[in-house]
Amino acid sequence: MSIAESLSTPSHAAALAARYGAAAPSAEGPWNAHLDLLLSHRSVRAYRPDPLPAGGLESLVAAAQSAATSSNLQVWSLVTVTDLGKKAALAEIAGGQKHIEQCPVFLLWVADLARSDRIGAAAGAEVAGTAYFETFLVAAIDAALAAQNATVAAESLGLSTVYIGAMRNDPARVAELIGLPAGAMVVFGLCVGYAAAGAEGEVKPRLPQEAVVFHETYGAADENRMLAAYDGEMAAFSARQGMADDTWTGRVLARLGSVAGMKGRERLKEIVQALGFPIR
Amino acid sequence: MSIAESLSTPSHAAALAARYGAAAPSAEGPWNAHLDLLLSHRSVRAYRPDPLPAGGLESLVAAAQSAATSSNLQVWSLVTVTDLGKKAALAEIAGGQKHIEQCPVFLLWVADLARSDRIGAAAGAEVAGTAYFETFLVAAIDAALAAQNATVAAESLGLSTVYIGAMRNDPARVAELIGLPAGAMVVFGLCVGYAAAGAEGEVKPRLPQEAVVFHETYGAADENRMLAAYDGEMAAFSARQGMADDTWTGRVLARLGSVAGMKGRERLKEIVQALGFPIR
Repeated sequence: MSIAESLSTPSHAAALAARYGAAAPSAEGPWNAHLDLLLSHRSVRAYRPDPLPAGGLESLVAAAQSAATSSNLQVWSLVTVTDLGKKAALAEIAGGQKHIEQCPVFLLWVADLARSDRIGAAAGAEVAGTAYFETFLVAAIDAALAAQNATVAAESLGLSTVYIGAMRNDPARVAELIGLPAGAMVVFGLCVGYAAAGAEGEVKPRLPQEAVVFHETYGAADENRMLAAYDGEMAAFSARQGMADDTWTGRVLARLGSVAGMKGRERLKEIVQALGFPIR
Repeated sequence: MSIAESLSTPSHAAALAARYGAAAPSAEGPWNAHLDLLLSHRSVRAYRPDPLPAGGLESLVAAAQSAATSSNLQVWSLVTVTDLGKKAALAEIAGGQKHIEQCPVFLLWVADLARSDRIGAAAGAEVAGTAYFETFLVAAIDAALAAQNATVAAESLGLSTVYIGAMRNDPARVAELIGLPAGAMVVFGLCVGYAAAGAEGEVKPRLPQEAVVFHETYGAADENRMLAAYDGEMAAFSARQGMADDTWTGRVLARLGSVAGMKGRERLKEIVQALGFPIR
């Protein structure tokens, strides 16, 4: 039972309404300050230059390392970047995302099988497992669990974040910039810092729970109705945010419909293999 | 600034000592009840039969959906399993992990590109992107970010969890049990419930921060010393927990050293491809 659980807040229904719009579930369930923090997440794309508080990075890392990790393998690493030239180069790889340069510290989350390989080399033992798709997937998933804990920790300190998948536009160049060995690859970046004034924005609505959560067996009979309703929610959200007018389903098709939308990432498997993951 | 942040607790140094042993960083940084919750995580492998509190699952799902998702694609789904026969079958796939049967609800996290394919089909549009390794990776990572938020939410409610990577021992059989369409695959399971008496155990020590976090450039000069010290921490932890006496580096090599240690997961790429992900 946590300290914060006793802090009942009046924000439960408001948090659900912000996250789901008209499709919000009822606010009858349990609620506490932790849930309030989790539901209030927004990705932020403009930062003040102020550094993290002293010891803040260590708190984020402690949270990250406290996440579960498959068989306690800990097959991820983190490289922090504050160097302006390096951040500029990384921003360029990401198609000119200025928030990478703005944020005081840019975190690069590394799927890292190189450490296991070094342990094997020191013991004179083969490490056959690191060649497989399964083991790469473990490293990517465990890096994600860790990064999400770091994100929650950051937001608990009044900091903001945004994940940068566009590090995968050119993982070889990213690896070169931070000196990664073979068997290590940045799976995504994470900007961390204090949001610029007005940059926090509104909580983004998500699909209704009934569209993504199924009981015992996959599937929802009325998916088409729910997706149409969500298109309406997102159109209203975009209008409020001054963003381009498009439906959510239209954006999904724009992003996944063509290979041209993948910005080089259609070659990711070959690139990852060249970085020392056979992906067998 | 969260409600809980003002709750300064005396537990900061204790939490770091539990997580890192002798290698704990100094407790000079910021601290709050959220960080306390994150650092107190333990994977739990024995559960009471009591169900989740009413509305609890909806709170976990709301937290999960509040995690970031690449381009707002939301390419994951969740299938909840409470059926005893189905849980028994899933426990068997996982090599007889009894906690899957014990926990009141077992969550199956699905990398789900089938929804995007259905959106394309409804629009008469091709969805070329779903065939690629990159897009599978996005789905797996986004499922992990969501699941980690659900884990934090669960623990905030006094519930416990354990991730079950062993769903990947036989993803085709798992898919069959819950009726997944092509282009959808369970990447891992998550037991959720109240820990059985005494089952919470001790916080597991992790590698020192200096062994996994690097600044500007990858690598630590004194890695060998840090790994040896961690071997000592884990040996002491295992002795306190009555677990088999082995070093951490020894366990890494036991798990990754040979293909035999992979329990069928060495075939994962072919299995995932057969489930409708070309992994191009």
